[in-house]
Amino acid sequence: MTATSSSLLRLFDRCPPVDLAADAGVHRRFIVADRHVGWVKPDFARMLAEFPNVFYLTDRAVHLHDRLDTVEDRSEAVAAVLVKLHEHGAIPGWRGELYPVNRRFSEAPLLLMERAATPLFGLQTYGINVNGLVRDGDDWKVWIARRAMTKHVDPGMLDLVVGGGLPYGISIADNLLKECAEEARIGPTLAERARPAGLTTMMIEAAEGLRVGVQFNFDLELPADFQPRNEDGEVSEFQLWSLERLEENLRTADEFMFDAALAKLDLLVRLGVIGPEEPDYLDIIAHLRKPVPFVRT
Amino acid sequence: MTATSSSLLRLFDRCPPVDLAADAGVHRRFIVADRHVGWVKPDFARMLAEFPNVFYLTDRAVHLHDRLDTVEDRSEAVAAVLVKLHEHGAIPGWRGELYPVNRRFSEAPLLLMERAATPLFGLQTYGINVNGLVRDGDDWKVWIARRAMTKHVDPGMLDLVVGGGLPYGISIADNLLKECAEEARIGPTLAERARPAGLTTMMIEAAEGLRVGVQFNFDLELPADFQPRNEDGEVSEFQLWSLERLEENLRTADEFMFDAALAKLDLLVRLGVIGPEEPDYLDIIAHLRKPVPFVRT
Repeated sequence: MTATSSSLLRLFDRCPPVDLAADAGVHRRFIVADRHVGWVKPDFARMLAEFPNVFYLTDRAVHLHDRLDTVEDRSEAVAAVLVKLHEHGAIPGWRGELYPVNRRFSEAPLLLMERAATPLFGLQTYGINVNGLVRDGDDWKVWIARRAMTKHVDPGMLDLVVGGGLPYGISIADNLLKECAEEARIGPTLAERARPAGLTTMMIEAAEGLRVGVQFNFDLELPADFQPRNEDGEVSEFQLWSLERLEENLRTADEFMFDAALAKLDLLVRLGVIGPEEPDYLDIIAHLRKPVPFVRT
Repeated sequence: MTATSSSLLRLFDRCPPVDLAADAGVHRRFIVADRHVGWVKPDFARMLAEFPNVFYLTDRAVHLHDRLDTVEDRSEAVAAVLVKLHEHGAIPGWRGELYPVNRRFSEAPLLLMERAATPLFGLQTYGINVNGLVRDGDDWKVWIARRAMTKHVDPGMLDLVVGGGLPYGISIADNLLKECAEEARIGPTLAERARPAGLTTMMIEAAEGLRVGVQFNFDLELPADFQPRNEDGEVSEFQLWSLERLEENLRTADEFMFDAALAKLDLLVRLGVIGPEEPDYLDIIAHLRKPVPFVRT
């Protein structure tokens, strides 16, 4: 505990969770093959209605046409629409990466969709977060990254040492190795020592749309003499922080991108830096893992 | 991962969470000073209706009389009713311990109530769990306790090395020291090294009523030569298990009492023994921290 007593709940005031289920008047459900897989805002729903061979609207929902009944047909038809909308400037930040669309992580995808469009459909997406930890006596230090100013999402904000979205066709373990190598030049021998440590979830409004995400969090103990170096231009600098500095920053600043702030808060809870004497302990923990409204639980 | 692939979700099939909010036809809300603090089943509601100076029933709720407007008056009036019901055999397992009744952990209590009655009112109660861990190379072993056959709740079942309810008037830190001393003869110098590691919640039907609980979980590293010994007759034996044995037991047996099983599952998730390759990883984590239906989140 530091001297300051600013509530950590302020993080969630900055990015309040959207109550999508209660908000059905604003957000239409996105339905694929009778499954509710996302949420679409009115403006984007109107754009999709211009493509009646692919999408149709009902009062409460945007449906993908049922005649599109294979993964290939659905993915192809949706991609054709998205490319057009992208050319008209409606989908910025095109990535050329496909994300699976499904209702549960373990399910086969109903279709594959360009990553940049997923927030516009309010799709649940998945990512990995790696806490880079260095032993400091009985305590830990933690590597922090600053995102490059060229990033489409949250340029210049603080982030984890390694993190990334999980596209279709790569396992969590392989994605972790790939991101460790690209983002911080952490080789496979080191990266394989990363241990899963649970997950955090979010449902927020962001510049690019709805961020409905599940982040798989990992802890990776790095040697004291290891210096992360960025390979893909996505990180502008790395800093090694004490847990006290991390806590102080989360209490008082708005420098971390939201999913990184969740992962760091979860780390501080798991390491006992934030404990039950924290006034909003129960609420903080509830906020870290809000049930996502279309995951069966 | 062990060879067996039994889903860990079976734990929650054994004790499925009660959807109290959806279940308003069966359970009446318990209202004190306009606050919803618990849930009462029909049989017990009928018993309370016999004491119209203290309780009155409406369609959907059991109310504590509003003329009782101080903590002292409420606690005294309720205690008088509960003693009578206990004498008639309706409240077994009398403890002589007072629990606070409130809507949030950090709030001042609205009244204090005998612990044995809290499941009959479906009150949210709080407890502490301590994982007793012993280093084993890069891995951990974990101390497991077997509950004495004389325990009122879950006699003979497996449990954490130290755990206990949190009565009114003692802090979490002091309760932890007290339970460590009584349940496993862990002295204060050792016990103070316990680190908070988050919480687990439950809402289940049990023999004694509704268990609506928040468990504050702690990890405590114990020296390899430390042997826990029970002082209060509540534990019949201690065993030191590998994490693999713990995982295997949780997958295949029904030996742990439910809140201990939650704490152990949470430990395996935090230590990375159970990771995202587990088929029901998201559902398991959601089950560990179900939002309790009257905690503001």
